[in-house]
Order: sequence, then structure tokens, then C-alpha cells
Amino acid sequence: MSRRNIVRAQRQAPRRRPSTREQLLETAGQVFSEKGFAGATGKEICERSGANAAAVVYHFGGMEKLYAAVLQEARRRLAPSEDLAAAVERETNPKAKLIAFIGLLVRTLSGPASSTWAVRLLSREIISPSAIFDEMRNKEMRARAAILTSIVSELTGLPVDDPAVARSCINIMAPFGILMLIGPQRVERVFPVLAFGPESVEDTTRHMVQFALGGLAAIARLAPQPGAATRT
Amino acid sequence: MSRRNIVRAQRQAPRRRPSTREQLLETAGQVFSEKGFAGATGKEICERSGANAAAVVYHFGGMEKLYAAVLQEARRRLAPSEDLAAAVERETNPKAKLIAFIGLLVRTLSGPASSTWAVRLLSREIISPSAIFDEMRNKEMRARAAILTSIVSELTGLPVDDPAVARSCINIMAPFGILMLIGPQRVERVFPVLAFGPESVEDTTRHMVQFALGGLAAIARLAPQPGAATRT
Repeated sequence: MSRRNIVRAQRQAPRRRPSTREQLLETAGQVFSEKGFAGATGKEICERSGANAAAVVYHFGGMEKLYAAVLQEARRRLAPSEDLAAAVERETNPKAKLIAFIGLLVRTLSGPASSTWAVRLLSREIISPSAIFDEMRNKEMRARAAILTSIVSELTGLPVDDPAVARSCINIMAPFGILMLIGPQRVERVFPVLAFGPESVEDTTRHMVQFALGGLAAIARLAPQPGAATRT
Repeated sequence: MSRRNIVRAQRQAPRRRPSTREQLLETAGQVFSEKGFAGATGKEICERSGANAAAVVYHFGGMEKLYAAVLQEARRRLAPSEDLAAAVERETNPKAKLIAFIGLLVRTLSGPASSTWAVRLLSREIISPSAIFDEMRNKEMRARAAILTSIVSELTGLPVDDPAVARSCINIMAPFGILMLIGPQRVERVFPVLAFGPESVEDTTRHMVQFALGGLAAIARLAPQPGAATRT
């Protein structure tokens, strides 16, 4: 449970403490992000969360299922494709959809989730994927790619299966992937003029949208087909 | 030594076999990329490379120095900033410089080095940096950033310390970072229409240059300063 959600839960029910299950999930996320699936033990997770030794089996049915639940929780905190799809569906024209898509990614990166175990765990999994994660990651990446592919196809007038559309999706998504994988703080060390805190969400979103629209317009112009070239 | 360099070395001196030092460096790269610095032992590296147990100390002065040499070798194979600077300096106008910069990154990603231990080792280090790598990485990233910052500043007419220039550098470099970190094969699984082999170098370079120029032109138009807005 993220700090923000804990605060929200506390507002709704001031005396409610996280359940043993929630506490285990949070502790397991921290332990897995530090040691990986292979390096973590149920014993340590139970001890660190103050639960008895059988709690992982009782609440999750074992370490593999606990790990899958932790990965799902990490995904849920970091702009999952369902949230991206919902944000995009609220808009009617492709430019507004692109703004919604990019805006959600920028807000997630600038929010509290970006400095928690969730990012470290997914980064670790992206570099050396476990079997459990491989299917989840492929499904999630394909879902994100499908949402953006459709927007890019509309904006450029190119068919969804045009390689230029796929390449453009990489152009648009890659900065967020890098910021997640290497962390905003380390990007700020390379570019001291930048900041990715909540105060820069608007500037960063405007920049990313503008760069994407300019890039897409240039790609549409380059394409052999006449297409509906975008003007920014 | 990369496969390409081994082939080249063999052409020049057909009977020359890799020296013990070269062989140790290659084996150490493989072992470190599989197990990390903490998980690797000098014993295993010496055994796997067929050298005697004292070879690491004799040739490198110890495991830390061997690890530093391996990181330098990995960097050398993956378009180091010196190569990028040299490629850019041969060109006179900023657009040609951008093409040279991007072209070298695309060729490196499509070349044999992209499937060797060098990428895996640097990916591992980027996610959980060792103290040895931290300084090297910061220096390398700043050197790359400086080269691209200067090109982007020229193309947009914005000062080198404008945040929009820094953000644009991230836009341009991020796709290569992602392709290196998660690997071309896994990107191809998300976008089956794409391929990053040697046969696609030209298409990929043209796309990346065009998208970058279009994005930069849009950023120059957005900027409050009049600036020398680029037209693609």
C-alpha cells in the first residue's frame, strides 16, 4: 500500500491498521526489491513484518504466489495499462489522447511511487526477468504498446502495423522507461538543470507532448504514403 | 575482445592466439555479467579461462582492478563517448553531427557487441551500480550528454543550459538506452513488426534522425525566445 493510499485509508477509517496481508505484501516488496526472488526467504519476510512463520503460506499460498502478488502490486502503483487505457478513452481526439497518455506517465514518475520498492523491483525484473514476471511483463508491454500504437497511427495517418509507427512508439515511451529504470535522481545528476519533482509535472508533460507531436509530424512527412500528416 | 576484433586480429596474425590477459578479461566479463562483482570469484575466472590460480593477481593486481578493466572493456565496445565525439567532430553542420551521433548508436546496437556480456554487465551495473562503476558511469554519461547538448543547442538555437535542451537530449538518447537495457530481442517481441539487425541500420537511423529533428523543431517553436528554429 503506497503512502498516499495509507493516508487515504487512515482518513476513511482512522483506527484501521494495515492487515497482516497488506503488511506482508509491503515488506515482501521491500525484501524482493533488495534481494531478488532467489535471494529472499519467507522467514525474513515474516520476521520483518512481525508475522508468524506460517503467514506467507497462510495468506498467499507460498513464496511464488507471494512474489506474483508483489509484482502485481508494483505494476498497479506504476501507471498500469488499464489506467492508461482509461485516461485515453476519456478523450476524443488523438492529440488529447496523447496528452492524457504522457501526462499520466509524467505524474507517476513525479509521484511518491517512483521512489519506492516498486520501481526497484520492476527494474530488477526488467534486467533479469524471472519466469513469473516474463508473462506479466510481455502482456503489460503489449497492452501499453497497443494503446500508443493506435494514437500514433491516428496522428500520423500511417497504418497500425507500419514499422514507423512502432519506432515512434519507442521514441515516445523510451524517456519514461529510462527515467524509471535508472531513476530520476540519477538523470538529474547527468543533467543538473532538470528536476522531476511534482512541481515540474506541467513543464515536463508539455515538453514531452510537443517533442512527440513534432517527431510524429516529421515521420508522417517522411512516409511514402500521402497520409494525414499532423501539424503541431 | 569482441568477436569482430578477434576476427580482425586473426586476419593480421593468423597464428596468434589471445594472450592469457585477453582470455582472462573475456572470461571475467562473462562471469561478472552472470554473477555480478559480489558473486564472482577469482578461482572460477581462472579455472574457466584455463589459467593458473594466481593469474588474476599477476595480470591485473586483484579482483577490483580486474573488474575495473572489464568495465572499461565493456564501455569500449559500446560506442564510448570518445568514439561519439570523434564521429561528431568530422562533421561541420549540426544536422550532420546529429546523424553521425545517432548513426553510431544504431550501428553499435545492431552489431555483434549488443549480444555479448558487455551489454548484460553494463545493464546490471546501471540497475545496481557498484562503487567502481559509479564514477565511470557518471563521467561517461556526462561526456555523452555534453556532446549531444551542444548539437541540440545549435539545432534549436536555445542556450546549452536551457532545461528544454536537456529534456530533448533525453528524448533523443532514451530509445538507445532502452534498446541496450532491455535488449533488441525483447523490444522485437513487443513490436513484432520491428527488427534491429544489421539490415535495418539505415531505416532505423533515418527514422531516429527524422523524429529527433521534428521534435527539436517543435521545441524550438515552443520556446519563449525567438531562437533559430530548425526546419526539417
